[in-house]
Amino acid sequence: MSRKTKTEIAEIYRQIQDHICAGLEQGDGQGKFVEDRWTREDGGGGRTRTFQGGAIIEKGGVAFSEVHGPTPEKILRKLGLKEAEFFATGVSIVLHPYSPMVPIIHMNIRYFEMDNGVHWFGGGIDLTPHYVDAADARYFHQEVKAACDQFDAEYYPKFKAWADDYFFVKHRNETRGIGGIFYDRLSATSDDHFQQILDFSLELGRLFPRVYSHFMQKNSKIPYGQEEKAWQNLRRGRYVEFNLVWDAGTKFGLDTNGRTESILMSMPPQAEWTYMHQPKPGSPEEFTLNHLKKGIDWLSFE
Amino acid sequence: MSRKTKTEIAEIYRQIQDHICAGLEQGDGQGKFVEDRWTREDGGGGRTRTFQGGAIIEKGGVAFSEVHGPTPEKILRKLGLKEAEFFATGVSIVLHPYSPMVPIIHMNIRYFEMDNGVHWFGGGIDLTPHYVDAADARYFHQEVKAACDQFDAEYYPKFKAWADDYFFVKHRNETRGIGGIFYDRLSATSDDHFQQILDFSLELGRLFPRVYSHFMQKNSKIPYGQEEKAWQNLRRGRYVEFNLVWDAGTKFGLDTNGRTESILMSMPPQAEWTYMHQPKPGSPEEFTLNHLKKGIDWLSFE
Repeated sequence: MSRKTKTEIAEIYRQIQDHICAGLEQGDGQGKFVEDRWTREDGGGGRTRTFQGGAIIEKGGVAFSEVHGPTPEKILRKLGLKEAEFFATGVSIVLHPYSPMVPIIHMNIRYFEMDNGVHWFGGGIDLTPHYVDAADARYFHQEVKAACDQFDAEYYPKFKAWADDYFFVKHRNETRGIGGIFYDRLSATSDDHFQQILDFSLELGRLFPRVYSHFMQKNSKIPYGQEEKAWQNLRRGRYVEFNLVWDAGTKFGLDTNGRTESILMSMPPQAEWTYMHQPKPGSPEEFTLNHLKKGIDWLSFE
Repeated sequence: MSRKTKTEIAEIYRQIQDHICAGLEQGDGQGKFVEDRWTREDGGGGRTRTFQGGAIIEKGGVAFSEVHGPTPEKILRKLGLKEAEFFATGVSIVLHPYSPMVPIIHMNIRYFEMDNGVHWFGGGIDLTPHYVDAADARYFHQEVKAACDQFDAEYYPKFKAWADDYFFVKHRNETRGIGGIFYDRLSATSDDHFQQILDFSLELGRLFPRVYSHFMQKNSKIPYGQEEKAWQNLRRGRYVEFNLVWDAGTKFGLDTNGRTESILMSMPPQAEWTYMHQPKPGSPEEFTLNHLKKGIDWLSFE
């Protein structure tokens, strides 16, 4: 099988964006995506789609981009290169639900190549529940593992540990949520391998609307009050802290003159900060904080 | 006149914290500071004071710290040094008012020295109005200039430009607010000069409660509604973006295992994000955005 070209990969990722948007509109049952097309001065552009008028999803978006041009200085320096043209395409998603009982979710798949032949895939999917729930965590990790296992038995354990390390709010000594998988700089060693990694990223794109629809249907029915909303806003504050302080993708985008509104689509609609907030002993909030840790085996978590 | 020792400077800064807290409690007329004392594992500690139950100030704090120990790797590398003990003391303030008509304010004074004889002062004061108002901007910059001019006629123009550059939200292409002054790595060339820079920082500490009390009294009487509150929350979102993405002090603190709750005392109580928000043409919100620019001469701004 011959290797897909960058243009073909971009087209495949565009279709994945369509698939995800259709699935989320169906899952929410009320809201619709509104598309914003943009072009990049140095080459390429994107289709940023934000969710409007949702019943379950309060704010979020599914962004596709396909950009090219001279490789940013930062990447060149990292790779020890003087000059190269780059091409990058990807789909990026963050969804913030109204209900604190429904988790925040994030997914990203991306492909990068340079005209000197260097290429890699990256991506991942991870869940940030405002309240950690054992059954939800098991379900999510089992689904992600099943998707991984279709391609490589090493993927889940390796990429799960990578997500624990990546989605870590160092200054709080807590993980952003219950993780999932994260991978980067995955380069193919053969044409078959290339197709396999590409197919893996597509499988994540198919998994996403299915898994999140499950949470939308089930968790949006759970009652909650002001206390849970207040906690949600504090957790959203932590989400902001991770994304603006530690997320390599966000930092890179803001640093290299990326499209700010598309990058910061990940921001919650609202967030709050309280000095020295401490959850009540024995509360679900305390349980959550105690489980924002690396290395938890969520597959069998009780 | 002999040079003040680091211990004496810390004591002077401690008194400045007391002076500022007393002035702000008087200005607010209702709220009180609550003190949190903490110690640092590697040496030193601080008194973080947060404002509680305010009539005008919704959230904020006045933090004093005096820390010492082995110099963080990051600073050593920057200075090309292998090893040195450091000492740092300072007062740091951020205040977020309830009313969108009252500006956010920030001030910092700090002193740093190493056992190899290197020393410097840094600091500044800057204003972030939710709504730019010509008279308020003139008043603020004139007061700051008057404080600077008592010490050195070069201070205001130089440090005003420095603030424009420093408090810049690069990914939004806008300044955080209307600036003020910012200075860093000011080293003394004589004992008299040392005393002069120290006195300058104390003058800023005296200026602070006076200037902010002016805004508290005057601007808290201006009526506002839901539209202004919504705009305030968007502006608070930009404040968060600047502090977490660009502020060197915040980044350094979070990176070097500083006391997170004291560093993030600067976060607003609440913030909001809206995709692609555009103020109405001709509105005060648009006027504000149009004046979040570097290089404006606020002293004579009409």
